[in-house]
Parts: sequence; structure tokens; C-alpha cells
Amino acid sequence: MPVPADIPEVVIDRLPIYYRWLSRMDDEGRSTVSSQELGDALGVTPAQIRKDLAYFGRFGKQGSGYSVVRLVEELRLILGLNRRWRMVLVGVGRLGRAIASYQGFGPDGFDLVGVYDAGAEEIGGEVGGLIVQDVRELETSLRGEPAEIGIVAVPAEFAQEVIDSLVRAGVRSILNYAPITVQVPRGVRIRRIDPLLSLQSMTYHLSHDAASRDTAEPAAVRASA
Amino acid sequence: MPVPADIPEVVIDRLPIYYRWLSRMDDEGRSTVSSQELGDALGVTPAQIRKDLAYFGRFGKQGSGYSVVRLVEELRLILGLNRRWRMVLVGVGRLGRAIASYQGFGPDGFDLVGVYDAGAEEIGGEVGGLIVQDVRELETSLRGEPAEIGIVAVPAEFAQEVIDSLVRAGVRSILNYAPITVQVPRGVRIRRIDPLLSLQSMTYHLSHDAASRDTAEPAAVRASA
Repeated sequence: MPVPADIPEVVIDRLPIYYRWLSRMDDEGRSTVSSQELGDALGVTPAQIRKDLAYFGRFGKQGSGYSVVRLVEELRLILGLNRRWRMVLVGVGRLGRAIASYQGFGPDGFDLVGVYDAGAEEIGGEVGGLIVQDVRELETSLRGEPAEIGIVAVPAEFAQEVIDSLVRAGVRSILNYAPITVQVPRGVRIRRIDPLLSLQSMTYHLSHDAASRDTAEPAAVRASA
Repeated sequence: MPVPADIPEVVIDRLPIYYRWLSRMDDEGRSTVSSQELGDALGVTPAQIRKDLAYFGRFGKQGSGYSVVRLVEELRLILGLNRRWRMVLVGVGRLGRAIASYQGFGPDGFDLVGVYDAGAEEIGGEVGGLIVQDVRELETSLRGEPAEIGIVAVPAEFAQEVIDSLVRAGVRSILNYAPITVQVPRGVRIRRIDPLLSLQSMTYHLSHDAASRDTAEPAAVRASA
């Protein structure tokens, strides 16, 4: 479906959050929702929600709010969730195994179709219902059955070479759990998941909020975004 | 240390990435770095790097670049990493255990000091070198020894009550791995870690890049941010 070019990444990042909350409302039988209610639940101003959704169409009716089922369906299309996506995982340490066991992927159309590792003791074993393959076979094994998404859960020192291999194998979206910044060619999208970076952003605030924290009482409740 | 108020969150989020890369350079014995080199490595324009750092002081010398060791030390102070922080973890399923076993926390000053769960089969067992405590004892156990950071790795349906409990126990920064948006009082900071949201932002792009993808060759290499 055609969408405007150059939608800010921060807007795109909010869409899955809207989709998840609206899906839950749909499951609960809610038929309409106002931008106010959605904003209160998600910690986004109603004006921002309306602005975000306006990039993609005219969904709401002034005074009546949005149709939940229609918004869910539109967001599913916008986010490409009306099809299934193939993912491979590289790295079956504790973290990789936790990722492989996550039950939330399948229901949203993400299928884990291959699992790889470099360790002899791992290869041939079973993780996430799949047999662990040798990471050196990655490009060969994906030749017949390409995957769109690669999840990288290997130590930092191996991340770049694993990602280079995934890219050569045709993978165009990468979720990088390794604690290191990596290089990818233009045309390949990469996201990182890194608790340490999140914690260090939070300690910035903890350090600077300290003076005010001892005096302030937790006041109005607000939603996390 | 005094810092300007209202530094944009996107700037604060880049600081840990700079810190990590510069620390590595410091370990490797590099003494100076230009904003160009740093930018190339991290996928940030040199102008943005200079602008980000300028919020905090005058670090570079025109034409000579930045002193690596000085920048690392300044960023350590800015990010509050010149002290240790106490973290508790709630939830010892596969994900919680993977988080508890992560070796990167300690070296950067993050100490896991308590681990909690609701399950009888987990309580009393050992995770991350600690004995798993009953989550119903969380507020009591933290009364004597407060923790600044809470990591939440429980199913979505329990996340809000666990976070409420952490907040009552005095925790002011929360890393939420549960796949749900939660409410926190003003004064409590929360970050989410959620691979599904990341994947759904990426499928947005995969869906919309599809037409151009089949024709474009991966061109210039660029760094992930």
C-alpha cells in the first residue's frame, strides 16, 4: 500500500505500541476508542496520536473517536503483519535460548525457521524446536529458503562477522543483541536490543534527579511510552 | 555535576553508545579521536557528535580531535557510572535467567542484589548467584537495603502489579521486559526492552522497501547507530 515517504522513525516506532494496545482492546470487545483514552493508556498526547495516524489515512470521526477493529486492521497492513516473516537466530547461549523460547513471535506472524551456533557442543542439539546448525553453513542453508530477519545473540567479538554473513545470505533486517555497534550496508535495517545502554541512560537521570528525588513525592500517575 | 536542563532524550540515548566505543578505544591505547572517525564508526554525523558533546563542556580542540581518555572520564561522570548501582530482578523464567547471567553488568557498576519470583518451584533456588526470594517479600526485603533499579521479566499480566510493588519499595528506574505498556508515577523512569516491537517497526520497512529492494544492490557500508 502506498504510504508517504519520510515518515519520522519516532512515528513508526509508536505504531507497534498502538497496534498492541488496540489489539488487546479488540480482544476485549471494545468497539471505539478516543485519542484521549489511547493517549492516557500509552503516555502519548492525543494530539500526537492523531498526528501519527493522520500520516496513513483518515480514521477517526470528530467527536466519535476511532473504530478499534478498523484501526487494528489498518495498522496490521501498515506494519506488514498481514503475512508471515521468516527469522533465523544466531547464538544459542542463555540469551539465544530465551529468545528462541519466546511465545509471542508466532501469534504475530514471526516464524523462527533456523537456529545457528559456532560451538560443537551446541550444533546438532535442539533449540526452539529446531536443530542447531553450524553457523558456517548459514549462507548455504538460506540459499534455498531465504529469511527476511536475523536475530544475533552472539558475543560482541563475533557480531560483525555473523551480521556480514547474514547480509550475504540475503537477510535485510537484523535485530542485534550483541553489545557492540556494527556496520551494515545501505538497504539493510538494524535495530539493537541492549539492556546496558538502557541502564546507562537511566543512570544519567538517576544521577541528575538525585537532588530533587529526595523531596518529591511520586505525584500523578503517568503511562510509560 | 551541573548539566543543562532539558537535554533531548535522543542525545542522552547516544551517550552510552559513545561511552562504550570510546572505552574500547581507550583499552586499545588510542589517545585521540576525531568526530569524523567516531561518526563513521557509530553511524552519527560528526556535526551531531560535536553538538551532543557540546551540551556538557568544551572537549575538543579544533583540528586535533578529542582526547579519548578525557572523553571517557567525562562520559563516565555524566552517565553516573563513577559509582555502583543496585538492581533487583523480578521473574526468573528463561528470560530472567538470561538477564541474571549477563556478565556485562558488573564491570560497568551494576550489581544484581536481589532476585524474586512468584513461583514456589523457583523460590529458594539459585539464580545469578543469589537465592530467589518470594516476590511478595519484595517491599520488606528492600526496606533495609533499597535498590535504584528494577528489571521486570514477568508475563504481561503481572507486570503492572510487580512495577507498582517496586515503586512502593523505592525503586525509581525500571527496565521493563514484559510485552505491555505500564503506568508509573511521575518521578519514576521506565524503559522497555521488547523485541516484538522492534521487529514490527522493521516489518514496516520491509513491507515498504520491498519494491526497491529487488533492484538495489547493497551499496556503501554504513554503521548502525
